[in-house]
Amino acid sequence: MKSIPLPAIRRYPLYLRRLKYYRKGGVLWVSATMLAEDLGFSSILVRKDLALTGLEGRPKYGFSIDPLVEAIEECLGWNNRTDAILVGAGNLGTALMGYSGFSQYDLKITAVFDSDPAKVEEGINGSPIFSMDKLEDFIRRTHISMAVLTVPAESAQRTAEQLEKAGVKGIWNFAPVKLKLSDEVVVQRVDLASSFAELSSRLKR
Amino acid sequence: MKSIPLPAIRRYPLYLRRLKYYRKGGVLWVSATMLAEDLGFSSILVRKDLALTGLEGRPKYGFSIDPLVEAIEECLGWNNRTDAILVGAGNLGTALMGYSGFSQYDLKITAVFDSDPAKVEEGINGSPIFSMDKLEDFIRRTHISMAVLTVPAESAQRTAEQLEKAGVKGIWNFAPVKLKLSDEVVVQRVDLASSFAELSSRLKR
Repeated sequence: MKSIPLPAIRRYPLYLRRLKYYRKGGVLWVSATMLAEDLGFSSILVRKDLALTGLEGRPKYGFSIDPLVEAIEECLGWNNRTDAILVGAGNLGTALMGYSGFSQYDLKITAVFDSDPAKVEEGINGSPIFSMDKLEDFIRRTHISMAVLTVPAESAQRTAEQLEKAGVKGIWNFAPVKLKLSDEVVVQRVDLASSFAELSSRLKR
Repeated sequence: MKSIPLPAIRRYPLYLRRLKYYRKGGVLWVSATMLAEDLGFSSILVRKDLALTGLEGRPKYGFSIDPLVEAIEECLGWNNRTDAILVGAGNLGTALMGYSGFSQYDLKITAVFDSDPAKVEEGINGSPIFSMDKLEDFIRRTHISMAVLTVPAESAQRTAEQLEKAGVKGIWNFAPVKLKLSDEVVVQRVDLASSFAELSSRLKR
């Protein structure tokens, strides 16, 4: 399998969303130029990104949408549903539980864990919440390999170690902490504070 | 004002959080080495980042925590409260409305807008929601310069143009769309789909 550079990988979801939007409108063929214009990228960039999927456009027609969507989804590994657990049903965790955007990339939250007994008892928005002492057993039993981590900063490292021990291979980390784990585990951090820091400082300039 | 590189800016919130945590525990002095170890960074990196604030550490003691916190907050522009509006009270918007992490960087959501009349009438979790036709007038009247954009992809560009027209200078964009605005407006995007794409593709390798 060829390795696609991360900047292209990061743009693929934008292409996908756009392509599905065209398709819904009945469009069958799309050119790199059209995608580029609609998304505000240069057409050279889009042409290169699309070439990385291994598909070739047809002169004058461009790309047929269906195979292009499939090729991009395959590059992203989004052609198969990814099951994940979510750990930490606070504000952000609850929002992510209800976030419909996940289905767009075939991510399915199969179980939610929290340390608060009240949440475990009552569930949230109709979804059951499991107690943290069920976490490791659940992961081992279901062979789930991905976790969305939305616990508070203070318990993030400890929880991540539990996840690793139980066999999780990928952590999407929303806690404002740099996790220290073995190289076996891929950690992807979404850091709202860093993003806001960048915005504030760019605004100040 | 000296300009601090963005990678350092992005790390500052992690330092801040850690420094405040030490302070809560009664610590008065901190060394770059201690910060580096606790956060998993190299101590050379932390030393450089802290030097950019203009403060100098004291040999054997390191940095006094209070002035260091202040200096970092000033570099980030977080020493003054930033007022912002939030546009789009869907799942993600509602989560961000209730997200306590914002107070940590002195961001205050002063008003929330949505196009759904039912939400406008009932509010969400006790907060009032204003209708979109009040948006521009509100911005002009309050001179608010920052907006958190959590509308669906389809209406993001249109809404962003409204925000710019009314005088907003910074947009924190959570919609999965690359906004096309004039250079007058600073846009910072949080793209969950891109982040998840990166995680999936790194896991696949």
